[in-house]
Amino acid sequence: MTNRPVAFTGSRLDRADNLRADPDALAGMMNWKARLLALDGLMPQMDDTGGLLWGSLADAPEDAELVFLGLDPAGDGPAKPCFAAVPQQGDAAPRISNPRVWAAMMALSADDLAIYGGARSIVNWHARHRFCAQCGKPTRIAKGGWQRDCPAEAGGCGAQHFPRTDPVTIMLVERDGELMLGRGKGWPEKAYSALAGFVEPGESMEEGVAREVLEESGIVVHSVSYIASQPWPFPSQLMIGCHALAEPGDIDVDTTELEDVRFFTREEVQAAMNREEGAPFGAPPPQAIANHLLGWWLERTGS
Amino acid sequence: MTNRPVAFTGSRLDRADNLRADPDALAGMMNWKARLLALDGLMPQMDDTGGLLWGSLADAPEDAELVFLGLDPAGDGPAKPCFAAVPQQGDAAPRISNPRVWAAMMALSADDLAIYGGARSIVNWHARHRFCAQCGKPTRIAKGGWQRDCPAEAGGCGAQHFPRTDPVTIMLVERDGELMLGRGKGWPEKAYSALAGFVEPGESMEEGVAREVLEESGIVVHSVSYIASQPWPFPSQLMIGCHALAEPGDIDVDTTELEDVRFFTREEVQAAMNREEGAPFGAPPPQAIANHLLGWWLERTGS
Repeated sequence: MTNRPVAFTGSRLDRADNLRADPDALAGMMNWKARLLALDGLMPQMDDTGGLLWGSLADAPEDAELVFLGLDPAGDGPAKPCFAAVPQQGDAAPRISNPRVWAAMMALSADDLAIYGGARSIVNWHARHRFCAQCGKPTRIAKGGWQRDCPAEAGGCGAQHFPRTDPVTIMLVERDGELMLGRGKGWPEKAYSALAGFVEPGESMEEGVAREVLEESGIVVHSVSYIASQPWPFPSQLMIGCHALAEPGDIDVDTTELEDVRFFTREEVQAAMNREEGAPFGAPPPQAIANHLLGWWLERTGS
Repeated sequence: MTNRPVAFTGSRLDRADNLRADPDALAGMMNWKARLLALDGLMPQMDDTGGLLWGSLADAPEDAELVFLGLDPAGDGPAKPCFAAVPQQGDAAPRISNPRVWAAMMALSADDLAIYGGARSIVNWHARHRFCAQCGKPTRIAKGGWQRDCPAEAGGCGAQHFPRTDPVTIMLVERDGELMLGRGKGWPEKAYSALAGFVEPGESMEEGVAREVLEESGIVVHSVSYIASQPWPFPSQLMIGCHALAEPGDIDVDTTELEDVRFFTREEVQAAMNREEGAPFGAPPPQAIANHLLGWWLERTGS
């Protein structure tokens, strides 16, 4: 465990899940006091002070589906109900490709970043799940945006659908005081990060860590332990940061996914994290949990 | 961390993900040497020795979608490719309601239980995801059953869909040497277990633990730590077992979900885990991670 804050955590909003299932309470909040998160598609919009821009529900298109994000206790008076509108188009891209998202991630406060990330994940899910996966009929938003229903009375199958979050393990693999990191295809020059992969049905997170490392590097690991987790909104992962110890053996890179996998010394990791000019690799950005994990490891192995 | 085995983990199958994306390799495995897991819908079938029953691919309906489960190294000769057929009907039920599943869980070896659980999760996902959530068109199985495609050439949107695993936190909440447990509506008489809930988009697992405990019991927690995880195939959760410390304060039960929440002493938990006749509550079954967590806590707090 570490006490360093992880990006995209720490939202000040109270999700107030008891209000989601109460149609009267929901309707009662959708008035002139409610705030609407200003989004351009899935992109955040900023106010003059560099914070997230908020408008009123009148700013949403008339037929927009609205998601209740929670109650905002900030400012004077009672907590304000906060909503976001589902955009026309979603985005299934697992990585951040838009420079505007990067710019916002650098500019927003930790608190605003957490609100944006959570809102982005859920409105993106709605935009990509307008139909029932079980029967193909159109679905309807329900419970303030925390559910979609396939309405039997409109010819659907009656299935209920819930926002999706994909657990992904991301792991520091250590051997003889060195860390194994990998470099994905098409990554920025010199960039290396922790190996990562989706937890599959039928495996624990420890089994997922061991399988992913073996698949991507040919290295067998043991003693998997948990470090920290992070919600990652591209599109909606739960990143589960772990540490594992590597058995002896040569690295065999899975070249379908990766360009390189290698071990780095503590000094090399430290130089990369310090963004030194001569560093042998580029460390992941501070918003990524991989950066947090590397910082944790440097602290832990520091003398 | 604890070394006690968790049910549904420890499958002997090698998922061999490199073969999934290789159509020639997949086709080459679908011959008379391949084994088909015998399922009656989603129910396991048993052989004479009480193990999982396996047949050949000829036992599958001609138009059945087949999922490649992995290579089985058991027995003589080369590892055998293992498949399961997607049933007509899926089941979205979060809890185990069928007595035949319970009977199988009690009877199967740990290894067979892990194979069954993983197979059940993924064939159930296919059965409930035959249509594209983005555009409503029929999808096709791909990559040996680890993907579904919405084919653009058949009028679809081209989206790719992946098996779903829902992260769920389940937590021991401790205060003054006692554990807080809850009792869901409709549970068997006297049954109590750890509180649990889905991790939502936009929160870390630690934040998920704190929110769920607050929602269900009114209790504020801190110092959340990770204990163990488990794949739970009803329908496909990743159970993330945690421990947390409770602040002072009275319990306020969320009666929409729970019938009761209360603290139990170490002696009461021990009596329940021993299945003593006079135990104040019924402990969760050994296959549930909640049982594992209670055992971990008793060991940890034992003198």
